Formats: sequence, structure tokens, C-alpha cells
Amino acid sequence: MIAEILAVGTELLLGDTLNSNAQYLSKELAGLGVSVYHHSVVGDNPSRLEKAFCDAFSRADVVITSGGLGPTRDDLTKETGAKYFGKELVMDDEALKTLESFFTRTGRVMTENNKKQAMMPEGAKIIPNNNGTAPGCILSDDSSGKTLIMLPGPPRELIPMFEEHVVPFLKERTDGVFVSRVLRLCGVGESTAEDMIKDIIENQANPTIAPYAKLNELTFRITASAKKEEDAQKLMEPIVSELYKRFGDNIYGEGNNLSLAEVVINKLVEKKQNIAVAESCSGGLMASSLVDIAGSSEVFLEGLVTYSNEAKIKRLGVRRETLEKYGAVSSECAKEMAMGVACASGADIGISITGIAGPGGGTDTKPVGLVYIALCIGAETIVSEFKYTGNRQRIRGRAVMAALDMIRRAMI
Amino acid sequence: MIAEILAVGTELLLGDTLNSNAQYLSKELAGLGVSVYHHSVVGDNPSRLEKAFCDAFSRADVVITSGGLGPTRDDLTKETGAKYFGKELVMDDEALKTLESFFTRTGRVMTENNKKQAMMPEGAKIIPNNNGTAPGCILSDDSSGKTLIMLPGPPRELIPMFEEHVVPFLKERTDGVFVSRVLRLCGVGESTAEDMIKDIIENQANPTIAPYAKLNELTFRITASAKKEEDAQKLMEPIVSELYKRFGDNIYGEGNNLSLAEVVINKLVEKKQNIAVAESCSGGLMASSLVDIAGSSEVFLEGLVTYSNEAKIKRLGVRRETLEKYGAVSSECAKEMAMGVACASGADIGISITGIAGPGGGTDTKPVGLVYIALCIGAETIVSEFKYTGNRQRIRGRAVMAALDMIRRAMI
Repeated sequence: MIAEILAVGTELLLGDTLNSNAQYLSKELAGLGVSVYHHSVVGDNPSRLEKAFCDAFSRADVVITSGGLGPTRDDLTKETGAKYFGKELVMDDEALKTLESFFTRTGRVMTENNKKQAMMPEGAKIIPNNNGTAPGCILSDDSSGKTLIMLPGPPRELIPMFEEHVVPFLKERTDGVFVSRVLRLCGVGESTAEDMIKDIIENQANPTIAPYAKLNELTFRITASAKKEEDAQKLMEPIVSELYKRFGDNIYGEGNNLSLAEVVINKLVEKKQNIAVAESCSGGLMASSLVDIAGSSEVFLEGLVTYSNEAKIKRLGVRRETLEKYGAVSSECAKEMAMGVACASGADIGISITGIAGPGGGTDTKPVGLVYIALCIGAETIVSEFKYTGNRQRIRGRAVMAALDMIRRAMI
Repeated sequence: MIAEILAVGTELLLGDTLNSNAQYLSKELAGLGVSVYHHSVVGDNPSRLEKAFCDAFSRADVVITSGGLGPTRDDLTKETGAKYFGKELVMDDEALKTLESFFTRTGRVMTENNKKQAMMPEGAKIIPNNNGTAPGCILSDDSSGKTLIMLPGPPRELIPMFEEHVVPFLKERTDGVFVSRVLRLCGVGESTAEDMIKDIIENQANPTIAPYAKLNELTFRITASAKKEEDAQKLMEPIVSELYKRFGDNIYGEGNNLSLAEVVINKLVEKKQNIAVAESCSGGLMASSLVDIAGSSEVFLEGLVTYSNEAKIKRLGVRRETLEKYGAVSSECAKEMAMGVACASGADIGISITGIAGPGGGTDTKPVGLVYIALCIGAETIVSEFKYTGNRQRIRGRAVMAALDMIRRAMI
């Protein structure tokens, strides 16, 4: 099966929006064993859009569009797609009901424009949108064997719709399976890791292995193809166990959507340990990444964003002398912050982050990017020093990943 | 002038690489007044690549490629591009010298493959690459008026080459400039806003106006073209002042990279007011979005992530009776949290967020997505109720945007 990705929207052609959907869809389609030979982007222009449909279907069995399903007159994907398949747009009662309840629920006023979003090509399979107003659809033509899958542009809408509805649809229609496992690593650099698996990469065939670097973490995607899923799984086993042998505890888990914060929260729940967080330069990002995980309320007691020295003294009992002698960005201060937050909240685990996120505030001895993280667990408090590069957002993000990793390793 | 962007590389079609070059080039071309109606991506396959060149040149005057200039046999862009223009590849002595000195400088060994990178289409203008090994080139055909600009794939190589060599080349060939202003709005829905400017959109010519919806905010991009920048600016003035008249305080600022948090921090600094934050469901995200802004340390005193009832009582002085009678997600609790954090920290402004971010925890009377935000400023405390849809991350993100907007409006 050959598929093609067609993104629709003038905002993409003006560079206002990044076409991240094309990457997401490509990766997923590769995993399903569907070949993708072209991506295209076209604006909200009816004749160019029509031509784009013709071109795409001249090359592919399945065309997946993103964008252009919204309520405005600019949004033309459904109209043009339906026209290409010789179908009319008709009001879909189910979609209209969902739309109406969305507006009632959110207390917003539904305009005439909005109703347009419930007009769907006749005969299409509707894909409900739980995160926005525009439903998607799958339109198939049995005689030509062509299928058009239309999804909304925002990734937070497109991704769950693809996962829940398009993946099962495509799986039924592909022969053989591609199965992937994603190993997630933390605490090992990209180049080091690639050096460590160079021999495996050079000799790869089936399964294949692909490393991806993200913010302070790294993933290996191992993909095998076979007639049946269990055979593909078996093919992957030797390579996966070799990777576990080489990387050990640096592998924090498996899965496409797993996050380090989730692993930490699950470990805390499992061990019945609760946690409190004291943050300076990360400013709430650590607390937020824990609270981001559903169920964190069981183990997350509180977070104190003690940005000023006064707050560090008052909330955490950091000693004024420590701040005067060593400064707020010091191993000593980090230690007192972690102990202080554990004590003040009565938590089993206290973790603190203090550092210089920049762009200002750096000195020769304490440059931008210097971060101290302390972990107080039981009677013990350990402090680590990190030196990061990059902008303010990147430094804060990496510090939070490192702090999460310290908690994880302490609980192994 | 019409340009088109063609990215070459199987890694893009597999989703291993994000095509960020297309966004970068589009934005730059829009700023130069060059129209872009298509992006495409094609793999390292000679016949598909040749067809892609034909298609692109049937629609555009200028085709800009990224990728496929490397040393391996997979890298075919130059060969295929030269062939399309009926040119041979010849060794470029200047390019070879640069390449040799690059290898000497970095202590790497130059292979025969590498030399291929100095083979350029005859008659092409070479674009040196200071950050990598593959030079780019500009190939023009005077009789057809078509131009092919070939650049390497890595953004750190492509961007400086584009800026230093392609921009001057294009500027000489375009007349007039396109200038944009981006107005940022908050607190007004996408459909409502579009209804309010329907008449302007229907009659637009020069300038044009384009609305884009983001997480709980909306932008209008107004673009005008003229011979000179100042004339384009003048053309935009009437429409921009009309938008200010219609949307008033819903416009929180202007600029492509401006954020609401930045506006809030700047306002606080300007008014010499400091702030403290009490968060429940947003779990540090509000504090983090303020601390994200450089210079926030001047006005951000502290943030208390009081996730548990006990923390609300202990840190913020929320009354136990309030929690028992109304619950933690209530207007009453939000009010006490905001007053409590202002009082506990001595801040001029206290803001609180409490709500049900889901997926669990919702009831009929208090569904997932219900959020209360309270703002305590001086002697006054105002509370607002919001009903959001979407997943946990989205609800938390929208609550933070709403809280930031409440602060902004209170300070106008």
C-alpha cells in the first residue's frame, strides 16, 4: 500500500506553522508497513487543492490530508475532497449533535459557520474529534480502490484521531505487519550511544534500529516486519536484549508515549512514597511535569517555587549564612532546599533544583547553564552538578529531566 | 515571482527528520515578497526526483531544494537538477580546495566519495558552505527564466547559506517588499473573531488579513506589499486601527514571537508590582510560564503548588470549612487561595488556579474541565469560572492562558 501526505493551509506556505503532522504521520505509516513517497503542502486555494488531489491519487492508494476542516470559508479540504470522489456534502446528524454538545459544554456560542463542520461527504466514515470541533472522515471508492482520509490540522486533534481510528482501518488493509518497540534512554549522550551500537546499525536488516535524540533523552526504535505480529516480536527479541545488556539502567522504559515523569510517578505509587519539590531556576516546571501525569495526586504533596532568597529562607529554612557564603546557586543551597522541602511538607522524598538559566546572571565562576540538583530520600541527601548549554527554556527543560532521572535511579 | 520548496530525502518520508527547512524558507520568502504555493518532499529516488523537478518548474519560476548534496550514492539532487537543465557536472576547483581545507582543519580523512561534493553543474554560481562539506549552487536558465537553487539539508548549513547568498540574489530580482504585522488576541473565540472581521476578509486585497488559532489565543497576520517598506507600513495602518477599534483590549500585543506571559511580566515590571502564584490543577505550569520569561525574577516572588488539601490549608490558610463545604474546586476555595498566597508572600498580586484537569475526578456537578481562577489585587479579589474541553495537558494550558489574561486585564 502506498500512501501520501497532503497538508492543506496557507499558514504552512507562509511559514507561520511547522508541518509536524507530516513527520508524525510518516513515522506511523512506516511502522504499519505503508510506503510513503511524497509529502505535499498546498494553500487554501480550490483549484490548486483540486490539482493536488489529482496528483496525489495518481501516485498513491491512500491520501491523508491534514488541515482545512475548520469553520471558515478558507477551509476547503472536505468540499474539494468530496468533489474529487463525486460526492455531495451532507449534514451528519451525529457530528452535529457532538458539535452542539461541545458548544453547550464549553459555554460558547455556536455560529452558523460552525455548523459547516458537521457537513460530511456522503458515505464517509466519520472520525469523531474529542479535542476540537472539526470531525475527520474516511472516504473510500471501491471501484478505484482509492481512499481519502481527512484529518484536522492541530496535532493535538490529529494524533488521537489517527491512533484511534486510522491505524485500525489501515491495519485491516495491509499485508504482513511492521512492529516496533521504542526503548527510551536517559543519562547517556547521543554520540556515545550511537558509538555503542555502531556495529548493530551497520549490520541491520530486519529488524532495523533507529536512534532519535530529544531534549536530554534518547530513543531507539527497533522495527521488524513479518507475516504475523508474534513473529515480528520474536525477531526483535535478540537485538532488544543486547541493547538492555549494553545500556542497562540508562533504559528507563519502553513505549512511544511513555515519559520519564510517568515512570517516576508510577514508581512512587508502587513504592507508596510521596514527594515534594523545591524549585528555583526551573520555576515550577518540575512540579508541572509531575502533575502532568494523571494520578500524580496520590504521591505529589506540594511544590514550592522559591525564586527569591527570602522565599528560600521562609519556606524551606535555607540558612541565610548558606546563601551569603555560597550563593543561591550552590551545592549547599540545593541540599538545604531538598531537605527543607521534605521536612516542611513531611514528604518521603524532597527534590530541589537551583541554577542559572540565563540569559543574564552568569559569572566566570558560575556561568549560565550551571545547575545543582539535590535529592533528599530517607536520611540521605545527594547533590549533583550539571553544566548545560542552550537557551533559558532548554536549560530549564534539561534540568527537570536530570532531576526526574535522579529520582528514578534512586528508586531502582 | 513564484517559488517552490522541494525537500529531498528518504529520512523525511520515514518521519526520521522534521522538515523545518520548509518553514524557515517559507517565512523568509514571504518576507521578500516571493509567493510560495507548494511544498513537496520526495525521496532519494532518481525517477521520482526528476518528476518532482518537472512538476515544480511547471508551477514556479524558482525552485529551492534542500538535501541530497552529500557524498553518498543516495545523494542525487545535483545530478538530477543538472540533467533537468541540460548541464553536465564538472569539478569545481574552488569548491574542491575549500573541501580539502575543511578536511585538513577538522583532522578528518577525505575519501573519493567526498570529492563528489565538489562536482557542480557547469555554469552554476557556487554557494560556499562554512558549516559543512556540501556546497550549494544557483543554476539559472535565461531562456526559460527558471532558476534552481540547491542547498544542503542540515538547517545549520542551509540557513546561513540562504541568508548570505540566496537572499541578495532574490532581492535583486523582486520588486517591492511584503511587510507583515501580527496582532495577538486573547479572550475571544476563533469563530466569533472571524465573524467580527468577515467584512474585512471578504474585501481584502492589499493588505491581506489572515487569522490563526492557537492554544487559547488567536493571531491576525496583516500583510501588505509595496515598493518600499514605509509604503507597505502605511497601507496597513487603516486596517490595523480598525482591528484595534473592534477588538480593543482583546489585543494583547503585536509580534511573531511575543507571548502573553511576556506581556504580563513586562507590565508587572513597569508598574513595579510583584506577584505570587497558588496552583492546584495547573501544578506549577503557571509559575513556570512566568519564570520562562527572562527578567521575571524582578517581579515573581514565589509559587506554591498546593495540590493536596493539607497544603492548601497549611501554606495558604484556606479554611478547612471552605474545603468541606464547597470542595477544593470551588469559587470560594480559589478566592481563599489567591488571598492566601498574596498574604503569605507579601505580594501585590496573588493569583490562584484550581480545577479538575482529568481524566479522573469529574462528577455531574463538577465535570472535568471545570476551573476557577481568582485574582487578588489590592483590596479586591475577583473569581472567574471556566469550562474547558480536551485532555489534561490542554485544560491545564488553557487555564494558565486565562489566568495570565486576567492579570493583564487587571493591569490595563
